[in-house]
Parts: sequence; structure tokens; C-alpha cells
Amino acid sequence: MTGSTEASADAARFLQQAIDAGREGMRAHRGGPFGAIVVGPDGTVAGVGCNRVTSSNDPTAHAEVLAIREACTAIGTFLLDGFTLYTSCEPCPMCLAAAYWARVEAIVYGATRAEAAAAGFDDAFIYEEIGQPLEARRIPMRQLMGEPAATLFDEWRAMGDRTPY
Amino acid sequence: MTGSTEASADAARFLQQAIDAGREGMRAHRGGPFGAIVVGPDGTVAGVGCNRVTSSNDPTAHAEVLAIREACTAIGTFLLDGFTLYTSCEPCPMCLAAAYWARVEAIVYGATRAEAAAAGFDDAFIYEEIGQPLEARRIPMRQLMGEPAATLFDEWRAMGDRTPY
Repeated sequence: MTGSTEASADAARFLQQAIDAGREGMRAHRGGPFGAIVVGPDGTVAGVGCNRVTSSNDPTAHAEVLAIREACTAIGTFLLDGFTLYTSCEPCPMCLAAAYWARVEAIVYGATRAEAAAAGFDDAFIYEEIGQPLEARRIPMRQLMGEPAATLFDEWRAMGDRTPY
Repeated sequence: MTGSTEASADAARFLQQAIDAGREGMRAHRGGPFGAIVVGPDGTVAGVGCNRVTSSNDPTAHAEVLAIREACTAIGTFLLDGFTLYTSCEPCPMCLAAAYWARVEAIVYGATRAEAAAAGFDDAFIYEEIGQPLEARRIPMRQLMGEPAATLFDEWRAMGDRTPY
């Protein structure tokens, strides 16, 4: 086998693990039909997640968020450089942004946001909303007290011992 | 005072609480200079959060996510209809999408994504990335096994006792 065929076989195996995690979570009524895993550069599975929104009363408990959090806890870091996120469905904007904040190296996904929408999930809708100007969004957004709020950043920049991320 | 003047005074007071939470968290080295609170329709503060990314090794531990999670836990729900999110800075895409998933009624924010960018944070960059087609993004995204992954949604739709969200 060539290296790239091996890599593809690995990717398919990892994505299957993500799908299996989602199916198991759905069947156990933990939440929606979504699963994810985070895999390190050496092929170790560092985090596994299934959607737990409804069972944990946590709208942020998406599979990808939980897999990323588990991997970070396991490794003792808030950065996942070199790690790959495998997810049963294209990440919603929350999970995609979480992957950016974690600085994962790559994302491999199965189903699409359109398929998630057809199953009743808001992923595609939220992508559309994020692309709208603030004043056109379905959730009204209002700015207040811009100056006192921005002083937080002045104080941050002036801190000698801050930990950037 | 008119009702709307009262409402504005309340909003300023709540936003100040969010800013204070961010300042306290930053000074205690919990994470970046961001704070948020979630306020119910009756004016009760249901959740408070400050950024804890670096101290908790959790890239998803943004102030808004933590305030939303705390409010949901307190109330025992995954939906915050009628609640308002006050945040010291315009939410990043992760936090904005979390607010959509929680179905908050409104968002009031202080500083802007541009001011966050000037202080070294990736909010604006991640907004730009989310607007890019998948193939143009800085984190490579690849689809695999679309069909087996989509069977999760078929099974979900066929479940009689599912809890939608």
C-alpha cells in the first residue's frame, strides 16, 4: 500500500469511530445523531464525544466540543496542533470555531450541513446568520458601553505575565 | 423614567457586571479579558462567566459559553428563550453560534471583534474563515463516507421517542 492509501484507510477507520460514537449516543438518548473523535499525530485517539445537548441540558454539548475538551484535558493543553478532528457531520459554526480556537490541523467529516438541516438541525441556518450583518440577524444584537468594555483589552495588553492563546 | 430609559439603565448595569466578571477573571489569570452574564426575563442573573481557556486547558471555555452553560444548569433546560446574553465583547463565532443554539432572545455587547483582534485574539480571523468556501479555509476540511454518515440522520428521523433541539 502507498502511504496515502494507508492514510485514507486510517481516516476511514477514525471517521467510522466518530459515526459509531454518534449512533451509540443517539440510541442511548444522550442527544442528537452526532459523534466525533480527536486523533493525535501518532494515531492515538485523544478524545471521543457524542452529542449530549438534551441529556445534559447544555446547548454547547456538541460531539466536537466534547471531543476537543476531552482531548485537551487528557493532554493538558488548550492547543491541539497536529491533531485531526473526525466528525460524523460537517461541524456547525460553534464547533468549527472551537476547532479553530484549538488550532487542530485538519477536519474530516461525513454528512453535510444540508443533510443535518433536512433532519431538523439549525447548522445551515446558523451559518447563514453568521454571514449576515449584525443588524440583519434574527437574534438582535446591540452595542453599549464600547469604551469601558475596551479598557479590558488595554489592561490585558499591559499585563506582563499574561498567557496569550 | 420611561420604560425604555429604565431598560437601558438595566442593560448598562448588566453589561457592567459582564465587564467586571471579565476583569476579575483576567486579573486572577483565569484566561483572556472577557466576561459575560445571562439574564432572565425577570431580570435575574442566571449565569456568569469569565474566559478560562488557559487556566482550565479548554479552548471552548469562553465567557459566553460558560455563562450559557451555567444558566442552563441552573434552570434545568437547554433552551434560554427570553434570556439575554450580555458580553464584554462581541461574541466570537463559537459563542455567537452557542447563543443561537440556546435560542437567547437578544445579545448586548461592549467591545468589537476589531478591538479583540487588536489585542491579539482570533475572533475576526475566524469570522473571515467561516465565510470562506470549505476548500479555501486555513484548516483543511475533507469529506469522507458521506453515505454511511448520513444514515445516522435516517435513524434519527425514524426514532419515535427522540428529543429534538
